[in-house]
Amino acid sequence: MLPSTSRQIVLASRPSGRPVPDNFRLEEVPVPRAPAGGLLLRVLYLSLDPYMRGRMDAAKSYAAAVEVGHVMVGESVSEVVESNHADYKVGDIVLAHTGWRDYAPSDGTRLRKLDPSLAPLTTGLGVLGMPGFTAWSGLHLIGKPKAGETVVVAAASGPVGSLVGQLAQMVGARAVGIAGGAKKCEYVKDELGFDAVIDHRSSDFADALAAACPRGIDVYFENVGGAIWDAVLPLLNTFARVPVCGLIAQYNGPSGNTAQDRLPRTMREILSKSLTLRGFINYEFADEHYPAFLDAVSKGIADGRIRYREDITDGLENAPAAFMGMLDGKNFGKAIVRVGG
Amino acid sequence: MLPSTSRQIVLASRPSGRPVPDNFRLEEVPVPRAPAGGLLLRVLYLSLDPYMRGRMDAAKSYAAAVEVGHVMVGESVSEVVESNHADYKVGDIVLAHTGWRDYAPSDGTRLRKLDPSLAPLTTGLGVLGMPGFTAWSGLHLIGKPKAGETVVVAAASGPVGSLVGQLAQMVGARAVGIAGGAKKCEYVKDELGFDAVIDHRSSDFADALAAACPRGIDVYFENVGGAIWDAVLPLLNTFARVPVCGLIAQYNGPSGNTAQDRLPRTMREILSKSLTLRGFINYEFADEHYPAFLDAVSKGIADGRIRYREDITDGLENAPAAFMGMLDGKNFGKAIVRVGG
Repeated sequence: MLPSTSRQIVLASRPSGRPVPDNFRLEEVPVPRAPAGGLLLRVLYLSLDPYMRGRMDAAKSYAAAVEVGHVMVGESVSEVVESNHADYKVGDIVLAHTGWRDYAPSDGTRLRKLDPSLAPLTTGLGVLGMPGFTAWSGLHLIGKPKAGETVVVAAASGPVGSLVGQLAQMVGARAVGIAGGAKKCEYVKDELGFDAVIDHRSSDFADALAAACPRGIDVYFENVGGAIWDAVLPLLNTFARVPVCGLIAQYNGPSGNTAQDRLPRTMREILSKSLTLRGFINYEFADEHYPAFLDAVSKGIADGRIRYREDITDGLENAPAAFMGMLDGKNFGKAIVRVGG
Repeated sequence: MLPSTSRQIVLASRPSGRPVPDNFRLEEVPVPRAPAGGLLLRVLYLSLDPYMRGRMDAAKSYAAAVEVGHVMVGESVSEVVESNHADYKVGDIVLAHTGWRDYAPSDGTRLRKLDPSLAPLTTGLGVLGMPGFTAWSGLHLIGKPKAGETVVVAAASGPVGSLVGQLAQMVGARAVGIAGGAKKCEYVKDELGFDAVIDHRSSDFADALAAACPRGIDVYFENVGGAIWDAVLPLLNTFARVPVCGLIAQYNGPSGNTAQDRLPRTMREILSKSLTLRGFINYEFADEHYPAFLDAVSKGIADGRIRYREDITDGLENAPAAFMGMLDGKNFGKAIVRVGG
């Protein structure tokens, strides 16, 4: 039995800089019905991801902005509760672009069926989902680490960074993580088993990073942007590769320090060290490589070589606070909201 | 008969910013002799190239700095005048790293024999030499333009830029050049046959570049650095490639405008458009690809599809002035000094 109303969180206004609670609004609407040839989905788990901050801006990004008054975009693990579509039956579990709400209609496109026997459902939003594939594809298809090389990744306790380091070690590379605070650093070193971890909040961060990379850096997986780049740049080796998949430190607008133009130095290093910087959005590689990723990472989870951590918040109504916390680095593990799960 | 003395130009002092005449000194020294197993070379034509500015600084570059008091480094077309080496005989013409001088000893390494029947000897320093291979390798191995795509290159009347545009057209791409001043622009458009050319000194440069690239930019061959990047960046298409082979606009030190940090915007565009920036020094590719380059470009010259221009200064004593002029963009074509040719 469906309830009569469905909750949804809409963009109430565009943030200037860091989002605030007033940028979001919780609404109740009648539960939608499955369209002809389509489905009705009940959201079980909603994913919170840094890219959503970009969608809140009117400024053009790599995808369309969320309009003011519209439902916030997002992926979820959902259950099919009505189906007019031959490929899906009631009870199927799918990865879907539902947005931040209890119920969502679907035309049957942009869905991916999940196998509940493979791993816990929430992994479809993290280590076995978009963040996991971002880590896998950026590292293997752009970074291409070789045995003995050094791979550095920031936000190393997060869903992308934690997998980057573990995958790097699986090809024999040295994994150096950067994380914020003692608790996360401990997790990266002791539970994930990175070769070294540096706290970016420490006053001697640049020196500590250099000490942790005695043979320089061959792959820097750039998923944060901002000041960490300045410490990484002088350590990059000739022919180093820099997959760029996120710049969370820049998403809330320019930092205070704009007194110096840092571009000429970066361009000089690109030239003098024959560096490769390559931006990417994971779906560029999905058609060709998603099955190989699923296979490799599922096996790694099953045999214990790959560990992951999730930070699950209860209740759709708490999604805005959890999202704002994530942008400030307060989550510990993949940020997920339990909606109807 | 060898003369008793040989002239050479040494680095008298390191420049701060733009080089001045006092940074160079002309000396006379006894003519060196061919070492055991080696050669004595007589320099016919000396190449002047932007990278030499970097060697004048103590700051680490991708190659060792010239020490104060030592001969300025540089490639030349030289004639073998003494040989104790089985592979070379007197009269052979070679491309060699002699530096700025009349006579130079050689141990027989880092030489490339030139075929005088293939093209005029000076082309070994330009279109058929290092600048030509820089253009060919950066464009084909990194830029990889496809038919119908748009390729933009600055310093388009120079030895690298002029070839980049002509090679781009040979694969069916649209070539847009950037040059300084009406005379160079006319040459790029009318003699080289680029599809469009923009004068970077014009006040509406950014708008003119946008108008010349109605379908955006797929390959930007970066050989100048500096302000042109700001106009190029917003026009780059998704998946655009940026081979970075030179930053002449930065070589003389920071520009006056450092009020704004331009790095975050560049990083955002790299991410949101899945750009590839790749620095390179041409010799990375030489072992594998030099013969293919020589073959393709020689044929292009022979059948008239590839045109080139040289700016030849007479006399070793005039090399410093010609070099300083080149850094200011005053040369028109590949900068060469006739030493003994």
